[in-house]
Amino acid sequence: MTGFVSIVGAGPGDPELLTLKAASRLRTADLVLHDALVDPAALGLASHARFLYVGKRARRKSIAQSTIERLLVRAARRGERVVRLKCGDPFVLGRGGEEALALAHAGIPYEIIPGVSSAIAAPGLAGIPVTHRGLASGFAVVSGHAEQAFAPMLRAIAPQSLTVVVLMGIANRARIAEVLVDRGWPAQHPEAAGVLVIGEVVSLAEALSAATATAVRAA
Amino acid sequence: MTGFVSIVGAGPGDPELLTLKAASRLRTADLVLHDALVDPAALGLASHARFLYVGKRARRKSIAQSTIERLLVRAARRGERVVRLKCGDPFVLGRGGEEALALAHAGIPYEIIPGVSSAIAAPGLAGIPVTHRGLASGFAVVSGHAEQAFAPMLRAIAPQSLTVVVLMGIANRARIAEVLVDRGWPAQHPEAAGVLVIGEVVSLAEALSAATATAVRAA
Repeated sequence: MTGFVSIVGAGPGDPELLTLKAASRLRTADLVLHDALVDPAALGLASHARFLYVGKRARRKSIAQSTIERLLVRAARRGERVVRLKCGDPFVLGRGGEEALALAHAGIPYEIIPGVSSAIAAPGLAGIPVTHRGLASGFAVVSGHAEQAFAPMLRAIAPQSLTVVVLMGIANRARIAEVLVDRGWPAQHPEAAGVLVIGEVVSLAEALSAATATAVRAA
Repeated sequence: MTGFVSIVGAGPGDPELLTLKAASRLRTADLVLHDALVDPAALGLASHARFLYVGKRARRKSIAQSTIERLLVRAARRGERVVRLKCGDPFVLGRGGEEALALAHAGIPYEIIPGVSSAIAAPGLAGIPVTHRGLASGFAVVSGHAEQAFAPMLRAIAPQSLTVVVLMGIANRARIAEVLVDRGWPAQHPEAAGVLVIGEVVSLAEALSAATATAVRAA
């Protein structure tokens, strides 16, 4: 008997921002493999499950992606209902696609349950719309993790054409701002450095309130 | 006594993809103002509420944005708990920012409850990650509603640098593809025309399954 894997987006860190479907899968899970920034209250919904922490954090020793994939396949082969709980949305810089491919190749039935992406919700919870009539009718989301990834992407976007959201860019924020200004973004542009989204983004709302007030006055 | 307005993202059309917080606000709502594509099962959660349909559909007569804003302010001034239920996320091409500003200017207390954005969930439910290691570490979301909006945005993005998701672009899909190819995207690129996300996106999963199979084979 083969089990089933649900690759589930946990949203931006507030357990109330889980979807009904995510909550339902957690309630019936036998095993939950979860990331670093998932809220304990969300895990609390999985009342019958065993938990396996497979988080990766910048600059810390962490579990290999191939190990996570092997754990998912093994648990499903034992017949378990597995929830792979990922921050935000599983398909936004979360390597959900790689895990889905590994399951597909191993012949394990699985589903993707989308989640509220931090890329949109973090600025949103701070009162900053990623699109706004007359200001921006589109936005881009890029990884700020490594310069060889973010620099070409930021250079590929014409200045002030789209709202730019940089995820996992806190360590590189000075370099990100430099690349944007080199590309032609005005140094005084309120979005010049992007919104740097880190960790438990819900708690950013307070830190960003000054920026929000400015944005609302400007609108 | 002043009421309270919750500007709520309903997600991509599957009521199971509402957040726990959205469901909770619907349950206690006195009045729900909702868009065209919100699922009736989601509205069913609001067991005490009156409903007001304020949807806008392409090429049909529709309610003015200023009227929606006036309705929200008036209901809150009567002391009602109002849910403004919007498809996807309220801050992704949903004019949620304008409604928030109108409430702020009128001194009405309000909150934003982010939702699962169709821009990410529609391709995701079809098995297409918007980011994938080795293929794309970023993505852009643009409105395909009007050429004066989408053409400059699409021209602002260098070919093959990011996954491009076009919302509300079905009517303009030929022109969108033309602009991308003019900009230098290869005509045979599997993402050349983007993923065109329309209406009840959950139902797109089937239509897109052929494309998904191709994407998975290519990865």
